[in-house]
Amino acid sequence: MKKNIAVIPGDGIGPEIVKEAVKVLKAIEKKYQHAFTYTEVCAGGCAIDKYGKSLPEESLQACLDSDSVLLGAVGGPKWDNVDPSIRPEKALLGIRKEMGLYANLRPAKIFPQLAAASPLRTDIVENGIDFMVVRELTGGVYFGEKKTYEVNGELYATDNMCYYEHEIKRIAHTAFQTARKRNHKVISVDKANVLDTSRLWRKVMHEVAKEYPDVELQDMLVDNTAMQIVKNPAQFDVIVTENMFGDILSDEASMITGSIGLIPSASLGESKRGMYEPIHGSAPDIAGQNIANPIGTILAAGMMLKYAFDMDEENAVIEKAVADVLSDGYRTGDIMEEGKTKLFCDEMGDKIVEYI
Amino acid sequence: MKKNIAVIPGDGIGPEIVKEAVKVLKAIEKKYQHAFTYTEVCAGGCAIDKYGKSLPEESLQACLDSDSVLLGAVGGPKWDNVDPSIRPEKALLGIRKEMGLYANLRPAKIFPQLAAASPLRTDIVENGIDFMVVRELTGGVYFGEKKTYEVNGELYATDNMCYYEHEIKRIAHTAFQTARKRNHKVISVDKANVLDTSRLWRKVMHEVAKEYPDVELQDMLVDNTAMQIVKNPAQFDVIVTENMFGDILSDEASMITGSIGLIPSASLGESKRGMYEPIHGSAPDIAGQNIANPIGTILAAGMMLKYAFDMDEENAVIEKAVADVLSDGYRTGDIMEEGKTKLFCDEMGDKIVEYI
Ligand SMILES: CC(C)[C@H](C(=O)O)[C@@H](O)C(=O)O
Ligand SMILES: CC(C)[C@H](C(=O)O)[C@@H](O)C(=O)O
Repeated sequence: MKKNIAVIPGDGIGPEIVKEAVKVLKAIEKKYQHAFTYTEVCAGGCAIDKYGKSLPEESLQACLDSDSVLLGAVGGPKWDNVDPSIRPEKALLGIRKEMGLYANLRPAKIFPQLAAASPLRTDIVENGIDFMVVRELTGGVYFGEKKTYEVNGELYATDNMCYYEHEIKRIAHTAFQTARKRNHKVISVDKANVLDTSRLWRKVMHEVAKEYPDVELQDMLVDNTAMQIVKNPAQFDVIVTENMFGDILSDEASMITGSIGLIPSASLGESKRGMYEPIHGSAPDIAGQNIANPIGTILAAGMMLKYAFDMDEENAVIEKAVADVLSDGYRTGDIMEEGKTKLFCDEMGDKIVEYI
Repeated sequence: MKKNIAVIPGDGIGPEIVKEAVKVLKAIEKKYQHAFTYTEVCAGGCAIDKYGKSLPEESLQACLDSDSVLLGAVGGPKWDNVDPSIRPEKALLGIRKEMGLYANLRPAKIFPQLAAASPLRTDIVENGIDFMVVRELTGGVYFGEKKTYEVNGELYATDNMCYYEHEIKRIAHTAFQTARKRNHKVISVDKANVLDTSRLWRKVMHEVAKEYPDVELQDMLVDNTAMQIVKNPAQFDVIVTENMFGDILSDEASMITGSIGLIPSASLGESKRGMYEPIHGSAPDIAGQNIANPIGTILAAGMMLKYAFDMDEENAVIEKAVADVLSDGYRTGDIMEEGKTKLFCDEMGDKIVEYI
């Protein structure tokens, strides 16, 4: 199959980890006789340096023209003080919005080989951690109107948290369909005892639920969910929630697995085309040292094959290679334990290619 | 000293646990020759049943007339479908707003006797968990304008997240002053890479920080904070954040201690008068069975003595009694372990009084 992949290395460790993911994709191409082309796209902090904005027109266009986007990471302290309108993160938000990627899927799953790295008690980990956070990605307070102005001699700032019914409806469908492929249980997270957007959210979730009688729906308040993720993560199958809550809870959910360097995420819209990235950031402190963990990006590339190109087998091969490499004791620095073999970033990429 | 305490039993287990806290306060009265009067105030779900609204005028007035307010818990599924304008939670929000209680102090601290109940790994717990979450309580998306209406044939809902400079300034002072009594370190949590309110928040925090050169200030993004609380809670001394983030993070922070039934919270304003309550909810499932844990409410009463009435010694006596009761192996059902003595709610109250 021919596919055109837009590749955004981004900032910090982004270029290093993306390089390894492309290495793995090339190995898959060879093994399965696909023909992928890779269009390198400049976005994020590096685009600010070069073009004065984080998402130049041509970059966005290249993403829109692609069959799917693979991203490393964007941002870093270097751009902390640039004007908010051109921040590195704007690239991410811009791509999400312009490509219509309203659903962010983030798996929280323990790698058995790394279970000891979980910050949770062994008995809690042993009950199982394997759920999917479905985060709404193009609505809510992220995209509502923002203003800062003076009122009676002092500054006043506002961000509008807002949702249309149809925005909630479509993410509800994503959640229920995801649950159908898993354990048929959706927990919808909101703050309906305080927010109007949450009350609308809850109403729509229950309406859509009627189309999925085989899936169980339960509501949970966001504050309680933040507790339950730590206390009893085994209770979750699919969590669906709005943008801001999803940002917070999906990061919390990743952390309890103890291996955020290994977790991929997919941002999807109506079509199969999406954006795939590791969940971790650009880690500028270790950039350029060849010690980053490329596995999150490699698994993101795998997710892309599966979700965007229907290449289930190819993704399974990547997942198995990663699992075997871990089982055989290979580690990057962030997940190093006594008695294991420490690899550099590019060595980890090579090793996974070898297992493929 | 004479003090007039407004007591809101509330719903669910509220009346049971408040009864034990009042028992303890009476023991303190006797021991120190104080004269407290207790004005019972009806608010929450029970007020909806009786008066058709969760915070009747007279109830609010009784709080405003008091020297301080002690609250059990409000809410429950019974009132899940009442009109949003009269929900049980409105009582809480109303009291916070009308009494000007803009600062919520929530300690996250391990009781050494209950360390095993923490969901975190022993080595993480052993590094220490002892920090204070300072949550802004009368601003942000909780109190911004809320609307739900039809646009082009579909529903649209909005909640306005908004902050005035002076609202941020005063909570900043609370945080820095709290840090001065602790380890001189404030972590200010925001989402400044996305929100205007967060950028204003960050700006004001750094301005106010100049008045506290002895306190270290660090910014942390809210998603990262949700991870760090689980990964490395020992790094925190004081966390300060806006209302919604504070709701989520303070609950997460409580949970990692493993003993949410024991944690009190104080809501404070400009004056010493505040509202004191346990952090847990009304637990309707176990209401009326005399098995709730009254310790959170009892410690909240202690906090009230200390913060509202400057009775440091009296609070210390309560804290010591609780610690000794735990050390001597007395437990309520929620924190029961093998080899300990299980007490009913009222027996726990009696036991703590005995130790006082
Ligand atoms: C960088 C930031 C804007 C982004 C977000 O909050 O969505 C990130 O935290 C994420 O979760 O992808
Ligand atoms: C009951 C609810 C409105 C309240 C809040 O969100 O503030 C509660 O969760 C709390 O934290 O005190």
